[in-house]
Amino acid sequence: MKVTVDLLEDFARGAAFLGTGGGGDPYIGRLAAQHAIEEYGPPELISLDELDDDTAVYPVVYIGAPTIFIEKLICGDDMDFALSKLEEITGRKAGAIISAEVGGVNSIVPFAVAARRGLPVVDADGMGRAFPEVQMVTFNVYGVPASPAVIVNEHLEHVVVHAHDAKSTENKLRAIATEMGLGAGLSCYPMTGKQVKDTAVGGTLSLAHGIGRAIVEGRKQGDPIESLLAYLRTTPYYNKCKVLFDGKIVDLLREVKGGWNIGTCVLEALDGGGSRMEIVFQNENLIARVDGKTKVIVPDLVCVVDRESGEPVTTETLRYGQRVKIIGVSAAPIMRTPEALAVFGPRMFGFDEDFVPIEDIA
Amino acid sequence: MKVTVDLLEDFARGAAFLGTGGGGDPYIGRLAAQHAIEEYGPPELISLDELDDDTAVYPVVYIGAPTIFIEKLICGDDMDFALSKLEEITGRKAGAIISAEVGGVNSIVPFAVAARRGLPVVDADGMGRAFPEVQMVTFNVYGVPASPAVIVNEHLEHVVVHAHDAKSTENKLRAIATEMGLGAGLSCYPMTGKQVKDTAVGGTLSLAHGIGRAIVEGRKQGDPIESLLAYLRTTPYYNKCKVLFDGKIVDLLREVKGGWNIGTCVLEALDGGGSRMEIVFQNENLIARVDGKTKVIVPDLVCVVDRESGEPVTTETLRYGQRVKIIGVSAAPIMRTPEALAVFGPRMFGFDEDFVPIEDIA
Repeated sequence: MKVTVDLLEDFARGAAFLGTGGGGDPYIGRLAAQHAIEEYGPPELISLDELDDDTAVYPVVYIGAPTIFIEKLICGDDMDFALSKLEEITGRKAGAIISAEVGGVNSIVPFAVAARRGLPVVDADGMGRAFPEVQMVTFNVYGVPASPAVIVNEHLEHVVVHAHDAKSTENKLRAIATEMGLGAGLSCYPMTGKQVKDTAVGGTLSLAHGIGRAIVEGRKQGDPIESLLAYLRTTPYYNKCKVLFDGKIVDLLREVKGGWNIGTCVLEALDGGGSRMEIVFQNENLIARVDGKTKVIVPDLVCVVDRESGEPVTTETLRYGQRVKIIGVSAAPIMRTPEALAVFGPRMFGFDEDFVPIEDIA
Repeated sequence: MKVTVDLLEDFARGAAFLGTGGGGDPYIGRLAAQHAIEEYGPPELISLDELDDDTAVYPVVYIGAPTIFIEKLICGDDMDFALSKLEEITGRKAGAIISAEVGGVNSIVPFAVAARRGLPVVDADGMGRAFPEVQMVTFNVYGVPASPAVIVNEHLEHVVVHAHDAKSTENKLRAIATEMGLGAGLSCYPMTGKQVKDTAVGGTLSLAHGIGRAIVEGRKQGDPIESLLAYLRTTPYYNKCKVLFDGKIVDLLREVKGGWNIGTCVLEALDGGGSRMEIVFQNENLIARVDGKTKVIVPDLVCVVDRESGEPVTTETLRYGQRVKIIGVSAAPIMRTPEALAVFGPRMFGFDEDFVPIEDIA
């Protein structure tokens, strides 16, 4: 499948939905990819089955705080430069590009890099959602080293991290990303096609496209959210899904702290019953509680959409008074194993509770 | 001249004096070098004249906050590893080692690295004193690029910085050094022998040795500080020197902030006249004022010594009630040029005054 410019809007919208508030603003992601595709032609999206075991595959990703991406635009040269430097270090030219996460910027920008290089993008990523830290990917959970990792700023200065584990890589990259102004290009987790097949969450980019499309189609029929849910129920991973809350944002705390957008969003039910939902986020939404009771928790997805249009709302664009619906969605099974929960389960974010799948929460 | 173990104590003491409070504790520096020299044999100290133009010369230095070095000991493996990685990147094996600064740790540790490698140490450094930031060396002032720079922690994780200028290199290294716990090994400013000759402050290690020796000799004759001053007056750079204050520490603020030991030390005159001196430091002492009037300011040297023994006192060992003499010393002429002052003159540390040589201050 060729990723043409006309597909990008749906791609970016669906990716923003799966990004659970993080992964960047879909408008910015779309602009970056559109520019590259118009100049270099559309890249191919290939399935895991079409990927050769020996192909060198590189993830490219923006690291930082999404609020920053709005003001400090991404340029594409930086990401291409990061990739080139990582290729130099490993001695292997990229044969394909992969997204590290699904998000409005971070699963669309790989199309831009791939277009420039004439390379295919693998229809997969490392989480089937977005997460705030570099170690929080299935690549790491299932044994791919995060480093060497190359981080690049807009001046094309670059820093190469060689660390002993993925969390240590994250710590060093976060320090540098902060110094670089919290918006930097990154290439890490250099892999073979075989490693990608063994560790990635497959099919997530085409699923993102399907989600974006379902929202738009639903608008024509008058109920984008019902259309979205109907589509999700047909997917292999996201089929346990429900609207958890219909409310208005009555309180919002969002700050740039420790290298992320950290915050809490409180909603009040529109039905007048006085019920309240609290969402805690670190770039991405992590947990949603109604009147103190957990309704969905990481790695399952907490997605915020506009209650009328179904448009995904990212954490950096949350605002007081906004009327939204909160949708809980099941994560891929590969994201719910004990090994996976040891890397990005609730306790890894400081929550004192265990993961319970959304389908098991009353 | 062979740097044997019996010379190390005087070397480290004199280096700590020139370190103007920074550059690390001489006891720790001496232990690190002693261990390596006992195991591998003493390295040769060679003059700039003995250095071949084509030799690859690498500075090795500890970066961080000296208070940390006391608790988190340096190991030597880290520095050797940093050097090896920088050699790999440049493709040139080291032919000699050089100190980046003169200080109790940072001009003694190169002896340890050189001993392990069987290499000579160049009798020179990048400032003839110590300074808190990576760009604050004559190597940078006179045109040697700071990067590639390799920083290594005690677990032998390493990060390689490629930046466009020395200040940007400093910013990135400081962020990583902070993440690494503010005690990390660093090799940067890879040079040729020709570049060293063109930019370094020559003879400073043997001068450090002479200073350390003068203090010890003076003790035998009953006046270490007079002996020290007499020696300084015979040197090519440090010949403008005077005791500026004789007092007791009555107030001390020292914190680890932004990746350094930052603070202020206030002394009261022992003569009962009520006069007060204030010293401001950032790892190193930067300025000394008596009753609000500047008496010596960077890049000239503000040196604190025990008033009885003449032992140099580093900023991390300053303590309330200590009785000390403050000695002001002229910096090398190469450190006082307009280009040099643009990198480490008073305004670069936020002081709103211009540099005045100590010999011109009343």
